[in-house]
Amino acid sequence: MTTDRYSILEIIGHKRDGGTLTTDELHWVISAYTAGDIPDYQMSALLMAILFRRLDPDELAAWTEAILHSGDVMDLSHIAAPKVDKHSTGGVGDKVSISLVPIVAACGVVVPMISGRGLGHTGGTLDKLESIPGFRTALTSTEFLAGIDNHGFVLAGQSETLVPADRLIYALRDTTGTVPSIALIASSIMSKKLAEDIDALVLDVKVGSGAFMKTLVEARLLAETMVGIGAAHDTNVVAVFTAMDQPLGREVGNGNEIAESIDVLEGNGPADLTAVIYRLGGEMLVCAGLADDLEGTRSLMDEAVTSGRALESFAAVIEAQGGDSEVLTNRALLPRAEHVYALKAPRDGYVTKCDALDIGVAAVRLGGGRQHKDDAIDPGVGLTVAKKLGEMVQEGELLAEIRYTDATRLANATALLEQAWEIGDDPPGPYQLILGEVRQSPPR
Amino acid sequence: MTTDRYSILEIIGHKRDGGTLTTDELHWVISAYTAGDIPDYQMSALLMAILFRRLDPDELAAWTEAILHSGDVMDLSHIAAPKVDKHSTGGVGDKVSISLVPIVAACGVVVPMISGRGLGHTGGTLDKLESIPGFRTALTSTEFLAGIDNHGFVLAGQSETLVPADRLIYALRDTTGTVPSIALIASSIMSKKLAEDIDALVLDVKVGSGAFMKTLVEARLLAETMVGIGAAHDTNVVAVFTAMDQPLGREVGNGNEIAESIDVLEGNGPADLTAVIYRLGGEMLVCAGLADDLEGTRSLMDEAVTSGRALESFAAVIEAQGGDSEVLTNRALLPRAEHVYALKAPRDGYVTKCDALDIGVAAVRLGGGRQHKDDAIDPGVGLTVAKKLGEMVQEGELLAEIRYTDATRLANATALLEQAWEIGDDPPGPYQLILGEVRQSPPR
Repeated sequence: MTTDRYSILEIIGHKRDGGTLTTDELHWVISAYTAGDIPDYQMSALLMAILFRRLDPDELAAWTEAILHSGDVMDLSHIAAPKVDKHSTGGVGDKVSISLVPIVAACGVVVPMISGRGLGHTGGTLDKLESIPGFRTALTSTEFLAGIDNHGFVLAGQSETLVPADRLIYALRDTTGTVPSIALIASSIMSKKLAEDIDALVLDVKVGSGAFMKTLVEARLLAETMVGIGAAHDTNVVAVFTAMDQPLGREVGNGNEIAESIDVLEGNGPADLTAVIYRLGGEMLVCAGLADDLEGTRSLMDEAVTSGRALESFAAVIEAQGGDSEVLTNRALLPRAEHVYALKAPRDGYVTKCDALDIGVAAVRLGGGRQHKDDAIDPGVGLTVAKKLGEMVQEGELLAEIRYTDATRLANATALLEQAWEIGDDPPGPYQLILGEVRQSPPR
Repeated sequence: MTTDRYSILEIIGHKRDGGTLTTDELHWVISAYTAGDIPDYQMSALLMAILFRRLDPDELAAWTEAILHSGDVMDLSHIAAPKVDKHSTGGVGDKVSISLVPIVAACGVVVPMISGRGLGHTGGTLDKLESIPGFRTALTSTEFLAGIDNHGFVLAGQSETLVPADRLIYALRDTTGTVPSIALIASSIMSKKLAEDIDALVLDVKVGSGAFMKTLVEARLLAETMVGIGAAHDTNVVAVFTAMDQPLGREVGNGNEIAESIDVLEGNGPADLTAVIYRLGGEMLVCAGLADDLEGTRSLMDEAVTSGRALESFAAVIEAQGGDSEVLTNRALLPRAEHVYALKAPRDGYVTKCDALDIGVAAVRLGGGRQHKDDAIDPGVGLTVAKKLGEMVQEGELLAEIRYTDATRLANATALLEQAWEIGDDPPGPYQLILGEVRQSPPR
């Protein structure tokens, strides 16, 4: 019986008093908790103590490693190509992965990405993909590996057997007020990503009103923590900070965002979305050794798009996962809510606020996200943002077009949207989209 | 359903982030937890957050009040006499209550004391009393009230219906590393004591190696917190700090300590034990309004002892609770382990250490206390300390006489006892027994 190897009570007390836990102790905690030998009420006390006392880099590496090895770990060693993944901390209108992955895959990178669902006011890649008729995001591990082998990527969710400890801990954190811990956020993300057997990881750390990290200081701490966990695992991790004060691109909502992702793959994406995709994709290609610097990656990605290879690759994966790739040429096949409400500008001026959080919450209220865990998603609702920060607008001109199915939900959404935009006499300062990055120090 | 009134998740988050909880929120937490509507894993996270963030005086008063009203509360309003209780934070050889209560009761104070069991290395009044043949410490509430009415006190444990929330929270703290929180310790003690419907409370806050509070700074914080809770409840609370670096008196062990308590009631108690009893008893008599100051209480207590009334009162309560009061005149009726081991001084000199913690743990190892919750106690084992701090000793002279039943247990105990004493060339500084006190500020 593993519970006798260490005393969970002593471990809680040691962390509570600011002590450092050993690698063996941390591995024991994770395995005993996963096995059900440590009850939830002790684990939640330990998680709260960790929230207050933190984990130092060695502890964090051990904790993450233990979670990562709590279940199956992917083995992609038969793949010679560089394996690089990308993860976003989540934002509004953040449909980056949907076009980024086919583009970098078309450049020769294998992307064993496992995607997630919407969380709070942020959308989720899986929810968006499921607005493609027939598309299945739950794959068996055989299907997953076949997708990677055939196309260089899949667009799928997590299997039950990967990082079970993270699933248990995540559910416990969600109900015990222990979510906002840098150590626990970082280890949760990194354990999942490192279980994918990747060579490198590019993190899109969102900063701003629509992000979980509201300031660059917080975001930097999280990024440095994740880069550090990567280093301890001998995996190259690059974090890029991108702004999330307003939605990325112009579309918010599941079907809407698929349509805008197709625009990107056709070379017609909005400038901000395309810029973020090219920056993150560029980092992935450099990590993969396919270019020496970011400058050299632009032409590779351009070629993947203009040649149509990225779009073809996306079509192939849609078909492989049961979806109808006709959506790529016929947008009318995407879900689209029946009714339209036009949100109009109350005055002339410049847009000085186009708040990502308000817009994200409004999209959830329309039915585009979940207010309760088991809510069904309405894939056809959403917003098309007509005026973004710094744009000039005249009274009565369209700020956003809102697709809705239920009038009450619309009213709940517009209550927020009324305050999401602010219009002033003078244009605001420039909106800086890329706010910096954190790279691993060269190995000593 | 009460769980809908507030969100436990928001309450945990608010306390975690350093916020202040309202009286209504705190009452709701206690009642919902007692009702089983808040699961242990959320309560333990809240307790850990409280340990780090503390409770301010208003929160602490509300939290204590909620616990105190979680079950039955005694109603002693029919008793005209002053009702004063005493509580000790626990020490080694701390048999104070056993003789103190009969003495102050003989002076006219009603003492509705509820006693406890040994905890860790400290002994418990109930365990000690149960070494009196036949003595029952579990009383029905009818028996409890009859004892108070007939004798002015009982010597009994807690009923199941009093402060159930404290019992639940205490058990959870014990397994989640949330014991060492001043707020939680103070509210646990005070909720139980205030449920006794008392006019005043005298606290014996032990300080030193054999106490839970190792320093006067910690002890003062705990004392001030408890005095503050009393003030919020309109109950006068006085805390006295007493030294616990060496055992109090010379006897450690259950039967042993009953014998020494009888010595006190016969006027033959050791000086340090008697001094603590007279100081605490004096405070109780002043609180009860039976004397103007401590000076005036000495003759009252002397008279209760020399007249034999305190001893008679003890005899009456022993009989009322099914015990054999013959033990008071025939010590041979007390349990006494068969074997004796003499711990001898390794050199000439002065005793410079006679460590209460080592001796307390040794007594537990002999079988005088519990190492696991369900261990049975051996009432006949124990130590008689022959040489205490500052006393002169010659090589080979007795340091302590150890009564034991099991040779393995003796070996485990002596391993500790070898280091409990230190003998030096020079006498140590004086041992200050009474280290100060905290009283309530006069009402504003």
